[in-house]
Amino acid sequence: MEGPLRLGIAGLGTVGASVVQILRRHENDLSAQAGRAIKLAAVCARDRSRDRGVPLDGVAWFDDPVALAKSDDIDVFVELIGGEDGVALESVRAALDSGHGVVTANKALLASHGVDLALIAEAHDAPLAFEAAVGGGIPIIKALREALAGNHITRLFGILNGTCNYILTRMEEDGLTFGECLEDAQRLGYAEADPTFDVEGLDTAHKLAILTSIAFGTRIDKDAIFVEGISAIEPEDIAAADELGYRIKLLGVAQQTESGIEQRVHPTMVPRDSTIARVSGVTNAVAVEGDSIGSVMLSGPGAGGSATASAVVGDILDIARGIKVPPLGRPAASLEPYRRAKMRAHEGGYYLRLMVRDRPGAFAAIARCMADAEISLESIVQRNRPPKSAPRSHDDEAQAVTIITYETTEAAVRSALERIESEGQISGKPNLIRIERL
Amino acid sequence: MEGPLRLGIAGLGTVGASVVQILRRHENDLSAQAGRAIKLAAVCARDRSRDRGVPLDGVAWFDDPVALAKSDDIDVFVELIGGEDGVALESVRAALDSGHGVVTANKALLASHGVDLALIAEAHDAPLAFEAAVGGGIPIIKALREALAGNHITRLFGILNGTCNYILTRMEEDGLTFGECLEDAQRLGYAEADPTFDVEGLDTAHKLAILTSIAFGTRIDKDAIFVEGISAIEPEDIAAADELGYRIKLLGVAQQTESGIEQRVHPTMVPRDSTIARVSGVTNAVAVEGDSIGSVMLSGPGAGGSATASAVVGDILDIARGIKVPPLGRPAASLEPYRRAKMRAHEGGYYLRLMVRDRPGAFAAIARCMADAEISLESIVQRNRPPKSAPRSHDDEAQAVTIITYETTEAAVRSALERIESEGQISGKPNLIRIERL
Repeated sequence: MEGPLRLGIAGLGTVGASVVQILRRHENDLSAQAGRAIKLAAVCARDRSRDRGVPLDGVAWFDDPVALAKSDDIDVFVELIGGEDGVALESVRAALDSGHGVVTANKALLASHGVDLALIAEAHDAPLAFEAAVGGGIPIIKALREALAGNHITRLFGILNGTCNYILTRMEEDGLTFGECLEDAQRLGYAEADPTFDVEGLDTAHKLAILTSIAFGTRIDKDAIFVEGISAIEPEDIAAADELGYRIKLLGVAQQTESGIEQRVHPTMVPRDSTIARVSGVTNAVAVEGDSIGSVMLSGPGAGGSATASAVVGDILDIARGIKVPPLGRPAASLEPYRRAKMRAHEGGYYLRLMVRDRPGAFAAIARCMADAEISLESIVQRNRPPKSAPRSHDDEAQAVTIITYETTEAAVRSALERIESEGQISGKPNLIRIERL
Repeated sequence: MEGPLRLGIAGLGTVGASVVQILRRHENDLSAQAGRAIKLAAVCARDRSRDRGVPLDGVAWFDDPVALAKSDDIDVFVELIGGEDGVALESVRAALDSGHGVVTANKALLASHGVDLALIAEAHDAPLAFEAAVGGGIPIIKALREALAGNHITRLFGILNGTCNYILTRMEEDGLTFGECLEDAQRLGYAEADPTFDVEGLDTAHKLAILTSIAFGTRIDKDAIFVEGISAIEPEDIAAADELGYRIKLLGVAQQTESGIEQRVHPTMVPRDSTIARVSGVTNAVAVEGDSIGSVMLSGPGAGGSATASAVVGDILDIARGIKVPPLGRPAASLEPYRRAKMRAHEGGYYLRLMVRDRPGAFAAIARCMADAEISLESIVQRNRPPKSAPRSHDDEAQAVTIITYETTEAAVRSALERIESEGQISGKPNLIRIERL
């Protein structure tokens, strides 16, 4: 049996404290599984005096995460500080440069610097693990990088942000507005005081960027992701989706197309009977489609201290067992450049909700714009009942018209909408939601 | 870069041919991920002349799997022969004794000899991998053994047999009898000519035995599993379940209880809105509940050549990457004896359907028997409409009575039913289906 694996944990927030708890509670079982002891050697956190509800006796304290990362007294540096740059990046680099293994839950760090960090890790033959960065406790990184690695992945998609899924679920179940649900989510601790990062899709985009790289063997490129959040979704959209047999979810989708790989995050209409449509509340789910596997789905808690800690401890155990896999599945130097598929070339069905001015010929003009753009309509519905709780249109004579298109392109839809707007047939902005083929 | 990993595949049926195909199709990508070439060195199959639709030029042929298993020209023996004993067992043993890695999809072999084989593998420091043995392409073995290993598992349950789930789904959707659906399944190739192994729950039991061992750190004990198949399920049960808000699934359940670990395979009523209830057709799904993770679920194709081959190739890649984990998660010698929880101590709700004789006091007598056994009833419904398609009761005056109990014990229910039967209140056998708390 080898000597113990010595851990240094930087950041003792909810996740960090949970990791310490698991290490204590399951000490013997973890040793049995690893074939060696796993020992918490040192920690680093801002406030030494705070009671975190976990015993830390016999554990060395560091004030500086970088000093901990470099310390000769640890084998693995567990980064739970957070943040895309700054001390998180500096300490992870320092740990890898010292030949230490790194376990992190930091998706922003990985999305921005994942390839660079993988290169450093590989150069030092040091493991770099980040299961907790995507989907909380769901083992999606391991599944993609190891179990499903014999597949040519054609598409993956998932609900990767619990805050958004909570809000959309509440809007649907209780007929509330986005704002009302956001307030609830904040009160329950599911949303931050500044919710922008979650509700505008940026958190989902970070996670998607990491998954795309592993699934398709390409360099991480978070800035190439098409991102739309959920703040423009109105109760009318939820109700219309329901009537049409759909639910609205914020999906992150990565998909191989002829022109490259689509990476997109946007509210998405999914058939009500599909498995992904039924993932409710703060739960996350990721579906992977490959040439051999067909389709598999993993679902579970996407956040929360103990679920995230479960993934961190899984990574620690991998390192204790000597499991070493290139962090992104392939040697980082061999990752191909990410070839972006143009969003305008995206193919799919579309849901459109337009406030059409009540004047002769408006309907016909809209139909003509769609036909000229070669868009076939599956349905077009004029709703005469007034919106229940949406902000009133400034043009009180406008009527909501809901359109579902057959498969078309983003470019066609945008050009049709531009023309409809420029002809003055509608008031306000059209609501557009993409429909995902499942 | 290390030398190539040389494979010997024994058994070129659907799965074997799919594995060869994947190895050819993704040769470069697999090498990139493994950091070394993966080379099909030799195969063994009965008929050399049969065209399997895959190129086998340059590959050595063996007639004897054991000779292939021992050959110095391979590093890993891929056993796709099948069968609990015989040549499958002999060749896997021979491969491990020769220090070769083994990848197998053989659940029967593992359920019967898994611990012994793990001991041999560990003694020779040879990897033994079997992701494909449970849940086809779903990476449940890896998830339990690695990603979720920091959890104390409290329960796992799953739909592990596609044949049964197909039959139950068809019975529900189309109101057909078990026999009708079985015939369809046979026609479609989802069921064997002799379906006993699948429909009586034995296949599910084999898979459950393997999962239990990894989840709870206990020795595999397939003979200690309580097993009931689905052949006694009647359309009336499906209809009653639906009315009561449930669906019927054949689940394998392993659960930690005070008196030991329950391992049971039986038709189970699950709430219609639960995720597991919505797994339909030949799809498999496994839910794992742990102290840190809460609950995760993995679902996907549980059988089929290419999905199973996806898991086999994942295992091969693990070995090529040098990943070595004790086959059952812990060193086999340290697995604890399986402590069986008595089925009579099982706690849960029960669905009962009784054909009650139409005579004065029968209803009251049944209620008294239940009360005397301290069983509280959630509902008791007498159905007056005649059964649609079930075999007619020989006692035409009997009325179907459907009972749902609150949480009680198996012992209490059995004793109440015995008394009801012995008092002659019912005709025929009562139908009993356990309700799973989700």
